[in-house]
Amino acid sequence: MIDYDDFFSRVAHTTQGSAIRKMGVMALKAPDMISFAPGYPDPAMFAWQDFRQIAHEVLTGTDPSVLQYGPTRGYRPLLESVCAILRARGIETPVDNLLITTGSQQGLDLVARALFDPGDVALVELPAYTGAIAAFRNTQVTLLGVRQEADGIDLGDLEEVVTRTRASGRRVRCLYVVPNFQNPTGLLIGLPKRRHLLQAAARLDLLIIEDDPYGALYFEDAATAEDTRPIKADDAEGRVIYLSSFSKTLAPGFRVAWMVAPTPIVEKLDLGKQVSDLMTPSLDQHIVFEAIRRGVFERQVPVLRRFYQNKRTVMQQALRTELGDLIRWPEPRGGFFLWVTLPEAVDADEMVPRAVEQRVIYVAGSAFFVNGRGQHMLRLSFSLPPEARIVEGVKRLAQVIKHEIARG
Amino acid sequence: MIDYDDFFSRVAHTTQGSAIRKMGVMALKAPDMISFAPGYPDPAMFAWQDFRQIAHEVLTGTDPSVLQYGPTRGYRPLLESVCAILRARGIETPVDNLLITTGSQQGLDLVARALFDPGDVALVELPAYTGAIAAFRNTQVTLLGVRQEADGIDLGDLEEVVTRTRASGRRVRCLYVVPNFQNPTGLLIGLPKRRHLLQAAARLDLLIIEDDPYGALYFEDAATAEDTRPIKADDAEGRVIYLSSFSKTLAPGFRVAWMVAPTPIVEKLDLGKQVSDLMTPSLDQHIVFEAIRRGVFERQVPVLRRFYQNKRTVMQQALRTELGDLIRWPEPRGGFFLWVTLPEAVDADEMVPRAVEQRVIYVAGSAFFVNGRGQHMLRLSFSLPPEARIVEGVKRLAQVIKHEIARG
Repeated sequence: MIDYDDFFSRVAHTTQGSAIRKMGVMALKAPDMISFAPGYPDPAMFAWQDFRQIAHEVLTGTDPSVLQYGPTRGYRPLLESVCAILRARGIETPVDNLLITTGSQQGLDLVARALFDPGDVALVELPAYTGAIAAFRNTQVTLLGVRQEADGIDLGDLEEVVTRTRASGRRVRCLYVVPNFQNPTGLLIGLPKRRHLLQAAARLDLLIIEDDPYGALYFEDAATAEDTRPIKADDAEGRVIYLSSFSKTLAPGFRVAWMVAPTPIVEKLDLGKQVSDLMTPSLDQHIVFEAIRRGVFERQVPVLRRFYQNKRTVMQQALRTELGDLIRWPEPRGGFFLWVTLPEAVDADEMVPRAVEQRVIYVAGSAFFVNGRGQHMLRLSFSLPPEARIVEGVKRLAQVIKHEIARG
Repeated sequence: MIDYDDFFSRVAHTTQGSAIRKMGVMALKAPDMISFAPGYPDPAMFAWQDFRQIAHEVLTGTDPSVLQYGPTRGYRPLLESVCAILRARGIETPVDNLLITTGSQQGLDLVARALFDPGDVALVELPAYTGAIAAFRNTQVTLLGVRQEADGIDLGDLEEVVTRTRASGRRVRCLYVVPNFQNPTGLLIGLPKRRHLLQAAARLDLLIIEDDPYGALYFEDAATAEDTRPIKADDAEGRVIYLSSFSKTLAPGFRVAWMVAPTPIVEKLDLGKQVSDLMTPSLDQHIVFEAIRRGVFERQVPVLRRFYQNKRTVMQQALRTELGDLIRWPEPRGGFFLWVTLPEAVDADEMVPRAVEQRVIYVAGSAFFVNGRGQHMLRLSFSLPPEARIVEGVKRLAQVIKHEIARG
């Protein structure tokens, strides 16, 4: 018998699976399971007819690039369309600073490999997106957390963590943030704080990795486009690497996302992508480009804002009805997630099997904390289930939570 | 001004661009350039009509999984179809040992990250595929080369290199080979040698990374399906990680490839892929699955064999006509490549600008050698240009070579 453990790299020995992916698989296995776990968009809202028509038109064979190898940076017309989308968000960038990635997950992986050495420290929010945590840890970087307030990251804590880390002799050069409708908390970094964050980054000599998958999906009853202005838009100095994606607006199955970075960094990311997968699939890039060119993207986004806002409202109402003030959460002003704080007596990790028994599933908060906290928290995603299922799922969850409290 | 060099990881400081990608970009820029550089399949042979029909049928919205997030391992029906393809190649494997990758490039990257630590030694053929060299080096592994003979890798040299490396106190656990129509030499490892290689791997306690993008494309005038039997087919012990792809048979733009590995390894690769891109794009996986289910793949492959065989013949005849015995090459019995040895006086790297001037391009041999050799060699890919362009390109190249000889 071969002992494969002998063959694995140090990285392979430590890589861990995604809690969210595991929950997703669980949800698939039970027939009547209601899943609030993964942040899946609702496929009922995908522009199926447009994509179908576009695929039919681009697959004629007259343009070989639709199915051929292509440039690592991405399909040029798509890159130019992304530039226009960025301009509308306040980011002026030459097309040469862009890179199409195979989902933003690849973007996070590429950034981590370009910037982190084993033993370095990188900073993330408390709590932070698990996909970023996994990609970063895969380089054997140490992750330290920075607290969040109601308007996002706590700049005092940021300064303190950086100072303390450097005093201990460790290299800390990067901060990862999701300023718009953060995953998992749904929080929005306030506009004044975005400016202050840029100033703090300059003072502390940090790069900011700004991940923005949800910015376009603000809820009009609670936020405006202006509130979502990317930090990158005001980055005169070149401190910000900006990531965004079509996964939540067009469809995740295309795996078409993008990054903007200062020239020396984007060149390294390009080399990293050559090694990772040569290029993002051509057909998907062509379809996404055509969807933008034909106005599908522009038409979809406002519809999605109202659609997900409504689901959020349904979930909030159901939670209030079923649990009153037993739990609390910051009201989501956009995005896919609602971040619940349970009574102290309830442990969200330990509650998972009981929830599964009641055919409802969530992600326990601890998965998002790099400091081992979050036991009394959980993330509910309202994006995928239809309204009636949201209501039913919240009923089931409420029953489980009340039962936990009674046991406690 | 920010000095970004301060921020880069050690990996980023050392990553290098692909020589082939650079040549590909060059070729695109000049209008009348004839490119023998990248190993692109001929898009005239893609099953455009079938893909168009399939895309139209799968994009109805009745199956949300076509555009939704999906399992990291891959779309289950596709995995099952791949099992059947493998069975036809002599490889019996449970579906659980398979992983769909975003091109084989991703497979190579995942393997490298799972198996190599900085400072380890890994073995590759002399010469070897540049995409593998780049992916492996990106983990800061040291690559050592093993000589090839007419029937592929030299087992005596393999044993010697391993022994010498271990005697010097370094860890060497893996060998990368392309047994079928190797990139760049076009060589085929003989059947008896495949068995001996497995025995050598067991004796030396090595894992074999077997990369097989071209095996299906043997030329019927010079090889049979049996000649291409994968090493993995006889791997009772679990020493072989096998990679293959639909890039050369269906189309590279889908980026759909796959790997088979022993259970503990495939589990690590799955975790690595979660971090890298979560999953290979769903639409592409569905289209490739349907292309297999509807017999497109099975219908295409024999047609491609004859098609590329014919291009090879055209290139060989043109080379003989133009250059007689000034150059030599092993006759390709499959695949996309013809590996030319030039007269000693001619340096293939130095000749590049002169070739570009004559509007013909190739990849200089040195890109494929991890030991700094290959100056008098070059790789010609006959897969992409139409016949008349092959003839014309060879004429241009012959002129350049003759001129070099005259200068020399």
